[in-house]
Amino acid sequence: MAKSGEKLVYAFGGGEADGRADMKALLGGKGANLAEMCALGLPVPPGFTITTEVCTYFTKHSGQYPKALAKEVDAQIKILQTEMNAGFGTPTANGNVLLLSIRSGGRASMPGMMDTVLNLGLNLQTVAALAKQSGDDRFAYDSYRRFIQMYGDVVMNVAHHHFEDVLEDFKMENNYRLDTELSSDDWKILVPKYLAVAESQSGKPFPQDPMEQLWGAITAVFNSWMNQRAITYRGLHNIPESWGTAVNVQAMVFGNMGETSATGVCFTRNPSTGDAHYYGEYLINAQGEDVVAGIRTPQPLTILEKKTSSSDLPSLEELMPDAYADLLQIKDKLEKHFTDMQDMEFTVQQGKLWMLQTRTGKRTAKAALKIAVDMKQEGLIDKTEAIRRVDPEQINQLLHPMLDPDAECEIIGTGLPASPGAASGRVVFTSSDAEAWVAKGEKVILARIETSPEDIGGMHVSEGIVTTRGGMTSHAAVVARGMGKPCVSGAGGVRIDVTKKTMSALGVTMVEGDMVTIDGASGRIIKGVVPTVDPELGGDFSKLMKWADGVRTLKIRANAETPEDAAVARNFGAEGIGLCRTEHMFFEPTRIMHMREMILADCEQSRRTALDKLLPHQKKDFLELFRIMEGLPVTVRLLDPPLHEFLPTRKEDIKAVANDLGVKEEEIEARIVQLHEFNPMLGHRGCRLGITYPEIYEVQTRAIFEAACELTKEKIKVKPEIMIPLIATLNEFSILKKLVDKIAAEVMEKTGVNVSYIVGTMIELPRAALAAGEIAKEAEFFSFGTNDLTQTTYGLSRDDSGRFIGIYREKGVIEADPFVTIDTEYVGELVKIGSERGRAENSNLHIGICGEHGGDPDSIRFFHKIGLDYVSCSPYRVPIARLAAAQAALGVEVKSNA
Amino acid sequence: MAKSGEKLVYAFGGGEADGRADMKALLGGKGANLAEMCALGLPVPPGFTITTEVCTYFTKHSGQYPKALAKEVDAQIKILQTEMNAGFGTPTANGNVLLLSIRSGGRASMPGMMDTVLNLGLNLQTVAALAKQSGDDRFAYDSYRRFIQMYGDVVMNVAHHHFEDVLEDFKMENNYRLDTELSSDDWKILVPKYLAVAESQSGKPFPQDPMEQLWGAITAVFNSWMNQRAITYRGLHNIPESWGTAVNVQAMVFGNMGETSATGVCFTRNPSTGDAHYYGEYLINAQGEDVVAGIRTPQPLTILEKKTSSSDLPSLEELMPDAYADLLQIKDKLEKHFTDMQDMEFTVQQGKLWMLQTRTGKRTAKAALKIAVDMKQEGLIDKTEAIRRVDPEQINQLLHPMLDPDAECEIIGTGLPASPGAASGRVVFTSSDAEAWVAKGEKVILARIETSPEDIGGMHVSEGIVTTRGGMTSHAAVVARGMGKPCVSGAGGVRIDVTKKTMSALGVTMVEGDMVTIDGASGRIIKGVVPTVDPELGGDFSKLMKWADGVRTLKIRANAETPEDAAVARNFGAEGIGLCRTEHMFFEPTRIMHMREMILADCEQSRRTALDKLLPHQKKDFLELFRIMEGLPVTVRLLDPPLHEFLPTRKEDIKAVANDLGVKEEEIEARIVQLHEFNPMLGHRGCRLGITYPEIYEVQTRAIFEAACELTKEKIKVKPEIMIPLIATLNEFSILKKLVDKIAAEVMEKTGVNVSYIVGTMIELPRAALAAGEIAKEAEFFSFGTNDLTQTTYGLSRDDSGRFIGIYREKGVIEADPFVTIDTEYVGELVKIGSERGRAENSNLHIGICGEHGGDPDSIRFFHKIGLDYVSCSPYRVPIARLAAAQAALGVEVKSNA
Repeated sequence: MAKSGEKLVYAFGGGEADGRADMKALLGGKGANLAEMCALGLPVPPGFTITTEVCTYFTKHSGQYPKALAKEVDAQIKILQTEMNAGFGTPTANGNVLLLSIRSGGRASMPGMMDTVLNLGLNLQTVAALAKQSGDDRFAYDSYRRFIQMYGDVVMNVAHHHFEDVLEDFKMENNYRLDTELSSDDWKILVPKYLAVAESQSGKPFPQDPMEQLWGAITAVFNSWMNQRAITYRGLHNIPESWGTAVNVQAMVFGNMGETSATGVCFTRNPSTGDAHYYGEYLINAQGEDVVAGIRTPQPLTILEKKTSSSDLPSLEELMPDAYADLLQIKDKLEKHFTDMQDMEFTVQQGKLWMLQTRTGKRTAKAALKIAVDMKQEGLIDKTEAIRRVDPEQINQLLHPMLDPDAECEIIGTGLPASPGAASGRVVFTSSDAEAWVAKGEKVILARIETSPEDIGGMHVSEGIVTTRGGMTSHAAVVARGMGKPCVSGAGGVRIDVTKKTMSALGVTMVEGDMVTIDGASGRIIKGVVPTVDPELGGDFSKLMKWADGVRTLKIRANAETPEDAAVARNFGAEGIGLCRTEHMFFEPTRIMHMREMILADCEQSRRTALDKLLPHQKKDFLELFRIMEGLPVTVRLLDPPLHEFLPTRKEDIKAVANDLGVKEEEIEARIVQLHEFNPMLGHRGCRLGITYPEIYEVQTRAIFEAACELTKEKIKVKPEIMIPLIATLNEFSILKKLVDKIAAEVMEKTGVNVSYIVGTMIELPRAALAAGEIAKEAEFFSFGTNDLTQTTYGLSRDDSGRFIGIYREKGVIEADPFVTIDTEYVGELVKIGSERGRAENSNLHIGICGEHGGDPDSIRFFHKIGLDYVSCSPYRVPIARLAAAQAALGVEVKSNA
Repeated sequence: MAKSGEKLVYAFGGGEADGRADMKALLGGKGANLAEMCALGLPVPPGFTITTEVCTYFTKHSGQYPKALAKEVDAQIKILQTEMNAGFGTPTANGNVLLLSIRSGGRASMPGMMDTVLNLGLNLQTVAALAKQSGDDRFAYDSYRRFIQMYGDVVMNVAHHHFEDVLEDFKMENNYRLDTELSSDDWKILVPKYLAVAESQSGKPFPQDPMEQLWGAITAVFNSWMNQRAITYRGLHNIPESWGTAVNVQAMVFGNMGETSATGVCFTRNPSTGDAHYYGEYLINAQGEDVVAGIRTPQPLTILEKKTSSSDLPSLEELMPDAYADLLQIKDKLEKHFTDMQDMEFTVQQGKLWMLQTRTGKRTAKAALKIAVDMKQEGLIDKTEAIRRVDPEQINQLLHPMLDPDAECEIIGTGLPASPGAASGRVVFTSSDAEAWVAKGEKVILARIETSPEDIGGMHVSEGIVTTRGGMTSHAAVVARGMGKPCVSGAGGVRIDVTKKTMSALGVTMVEGDMVTIDGASGRIIKGVVPTVDPELGGDFSKLMKWADGVRTLKIRANAETPEDAAVARNFGAEGIGLCRTEHMFFEPTRIMHMREMILADCEQSRRTALDKLLPHQKKDFLELFRIMEGLPVTVRLLDPPLHEFLPTRKEDIKAVANDLGVKEEEIEARIVQLHEFNPMLGHRGCRLGITYPEIYEVQTRAIFEAACELTKEKIKVKPEIMIPLIATLNEFSILKKLVDKIAAEVMEKTGVNVSYIVGTMIELPRAALAAGEIAKEAEFFSFGTNDLTQTTYGLSRDDSGRFIGIYREKGVIEADPFVTIDTEYVGELVKIGSERGRAENSNLHIGICGEHGGDPDSIRFFHKIGLDYVSCSPYRVPIARLAAAQAALGVEVKSNA
């Protein structure tokens, strides 16, 4: 809060400034950077910043200002008039008028949430002077009526449409269609009408006194800090109300004062490619918004850029060489000063260059990577800063094939970008059709209303997956990300008819076998084949990754069960497998038959007979997996899902299975009914299967150790870690650990080989997290299963939450989907409790996490902070996790704004 | 552990004893009580107890004994021979032989888990002496061969069947069918054969030296502490291994030494009725096991008892007046000494009375109540002790109608005693049939394979419920207990054919409309009508309840929504309603129609139209409820279950609903598909409905406040507490509290009446428990929903766990069903954390629990300990909870052994 004697207003201009770039808390981002540019001696239109502390005072005192403010503002206005040699409200002797912009500017960017007033200072007297000064009547009166409308809206609460009505009436009377058809005389007629509208709608005359205008605007901006839009935005982005906003009052300059004026934006390096070339666009005789609006084609800034883009428009370098030379110098100065690529706005008013803004430039993933590595090599930044500069989430784009950016696309639908990458193939609508087409040598895209575990086989053979229902964390999305396959989920506008085997959207109907392309990075579904380009994981990428590995302390493992996934993971730098889901190994046609035979068996003996048929398959899997991960740990989770997930549900599938297994359909149906669960997530699964059917875990353990012993004989180093899922009590773990130890000893004795291994558990239930101290007495490692831990802690089914989680985010009930970024507050507390209690009991306990959160940078930051040993994520996210872990080690607190 | 110099052996006998009753930890229960009786001067066969510390030493030192033990035992044996004037292994000059019993006896009773050896000391020399002493060859040689078999089994590991084989062969050779046909000469022939079996099977000769026999038996008993049976039993009953067992070595006395010998059991008061009359049974010339085995009809102890039971057998009072007089004196002495009803065993050996055991007697609920109240009134115990004496769980029997104990019953099936009480009615197999029969004025019993929320209507109108699937915590069981109706669940042997409308078991088939009786206290299903007797809640009951109310600090509320339940609850002493489940109010035919209309509505407006039709019904419910609970708080939970629970599932029901509502069947089916959830427990329910369809909570709130205001105008005091279910985050609560406050203000303004109310939440998710500090900033009360909290903390679906929870208990994985008794360790920790964090933030926070655990005495003890304000349970459990709360306040730690 503003105390008496403290400065309330910080001036900038004329090569001097009261503020600095590091005073963002007090002056907001915009104000601090304007001050910094001024202090660097750059030509910035002068102005001043009213501090965020005034905002706080204003909010707490129901719209009152600290007493000293009025005097400070008055003094600044006087200085501004002198500096600009222009009169505020009354033109100076030379006919110059001072117009002001009034803008909000908080510590964090809140684009479009708060109010702005431009051209403040215009009245009937100054508008005439402006017309004279600019030599352009139309410009002056158009500016005035725009000011009346903006001020009317923001300060006087007169809705836009009241002004638009007047304009429309006038256009109708005069048979005009476009605003551009209005002459300066027309605008002169309209101005009084606008003033009248403002007065009649607000009940107060539109102020002619510029100081009254100024205070109205300042108050409106401060008030807008507490408008509903802003409150909601802050809620969603975790911006404290107490931060407040600053108000920037700045002299207006005009890029639209004739042919010697111009306005543009430029970047110190190419924001798309990262090339270290000056890059920008501008327009002659235009305002900033014209560049952004894209009504006129912007011109290239440099001669080089003109050549590269084969433009025939003249560059600023050619047209205004003096202003360009100034700009070139300024850009070098700014990039060196801020040691990052800058995004600048400038205006040339009647030949003179003014800098309006500079900020760190947004950039593509590719550019971010190149700029970071280049700057390090140029000596501008050091290694750790280069690591900080790249957003881990963003490099995801670089790891998958992308649509060729130059290709034409006929988009037929859009869904959520659920798993990145692009792929083409023949569209199919069932898992079995997918397998059938693939058997014929075709590539397919599997399109389903939603997927279930039954579709795993089809998903495996497909190039990509589309669903019309479900969100970013639906079954399809999670499994696709796990498999590293592109996926577009929840494409609501697309209608799939499974019976007819068609997919329709936007009037296009595709039938089974038609070629389709999907882009999982953007959520687009495209008709036909679109060429893709492969990712370049070359020099810059591997350099940055190496630097990252040098600083991180968290180990990174991958969730993988197939040899392909394991190979990808190792290639991407995974330091082991943190989660091998053995059930995924059972979905291949011959295997699922044995699995079903086991489930339909009515006694332990028949179950064992069926399981014995599965054993050689499982052993083969482990032989391959262990070989690929030679020397690295492989965490194998014993069977987890409820048995009914392996049974068919559709009538025709039941028939087929009955045929295959030589049993009656009714028998299968009866077993399905018997196994039906109300809440399978909380049902007969995980270690509960191991306790009730020990023979299942026994056979799995046997397969693991037979493979491990065989490879050890070949001198291949194997480090198996046996993981028991869904533990709630120590007793469950003890019983199953004994079983594993017994089988391991048997196999090792039989083969005469010793394999060192550890047995641990997933901590995925709140009870297990709380009982971690007990469980750690026997467990040698913990792996937090944060997906299920989130489901149980929140009492929220991931598969069902899609129906209302959208509304929850809209209404600001939750900030982020807790299945994407871990709820650090309370699910996180359980992870922390579990890890602390576990370590207190067993200091050797090795602790990791293997939920989807293992690949999420924000979550990784949290896991680093609470001291876990490793995270395990899907193979394609390993590089992201490596970078995120490095940033966490460097203490990066929030996502970079890049 | 035994330290040198510490006593290892405690002697008793001859009116003196080294031990006392309060030394159970060292001497075990049996040893301590034998010592106590001796010290009281009662005629106890002398003996000694080897302490539990020797057991601990023995276990830790792989079967070694402390050095001093042998000497102490030797000394005791010498004393025993002197005291009994009998020789151990060699008869004394007068021909007397000393035989010993060797029995385990731990601190806690572990019936049948550990080993015992009787008649120790017999060999070829002493058996002859015993024959002479008793004048009965057959008795002596039969005793010897029994000893060989028992010792062979327990000490030498020779299985029983080896001895049985010898006996069978002998009987076959001699054409005997029964053991009683064998003469003393036959037993004399068999003894050497038995000795030979023991030697050939064990590889060692059967010991003739009595000291060798003795050490073998002592070692066997100590070893049996670590046998698998005992370990499992301890695991299940939470008995620490470290407690160890004592070994009691005691002189044998014989009730079967002719017509002047007898043996019996007696109680200081009648254990069935509680009447203060001496009560017992005995047999002449018999051993203790003969009384228990029931081969011979036992004789009444007293003349009074002989009359009461119209027995024509002579009483002990008549036959052995001296022994009887001694016994009478002893019984008075023991009851006074232990100040509780005693269960005693005695033997008369050739005219002399010996006391073998005394312990607190087990008793029926009725007897427990009467004895406690009587003893208080006799001045034997005080009020608090009377409260301690009655097992709260046991009095459940007294609160419901019971089958007339004298009636004949044709039992056709048995299931779990899921909800106590007895009832008769016509058997029906669907909810709608139940309603149809009841509409005709008939009483019905609803029999279903399992129930679902759709059956609520039928359950409501039925006298009782039977299911063939599901456990003690299945839907049927929980709802029936809530309604206070008898229920037998999981009657696996009964087959229900819903299509044919029949129920068959034990060869009997009943069709719809046949009369059936069920006894929910025993789980019996009986053909026809069995008369019932109503509970007597008279003098003793209300006296004890009043005493209990005087000491408890926990308040007791009831879970109730119907006027009937509320009236029962108030009558049973409930101090308010802790949970009124508004959804139960929607299952009546007209209401569910409006509910379905609401669910099928496609926009807010249509939903509101349907809800407006429900409003008057809800208001009427609240008017009745508030009136009954005048002056007491009523906690109303807003709608909780997912909407699909209100839709029909069976084809024919869908058709009927479509007809009623005038919509297409396909429309209903489509909505059912749309609302289908994978895990409804974790789905779109509770406050998630309130956030997404605020109009539902709005209308419910309006109904509550319209009713409250109307009654307030009538000067009826109303205390509504609005409870928002399934809160996971503060935001959810804030949004919905605002909604409730807004509607409440509206209604109060409109009616011009002020009603004070509070708004709170259920804490039923782990996240809510952890976030309790935040939530308590706005919530005025918490009610822990421990059912759902247990489901989520364990990741265990109550409806699905039945399939494996049995195996879990069998294998000792869990001790108690966590849905019956709260898991105090970890679910309990969350309750504790939630309540501590809540109170830290808001010291006025009122905290209760309303899960099923609210009626469970063990759980109530826990809730008292962590300082909750109240528990809420089903109306019929209110008295149980009152008593349990009083015991908790008195610091009663474990269930009484009664």
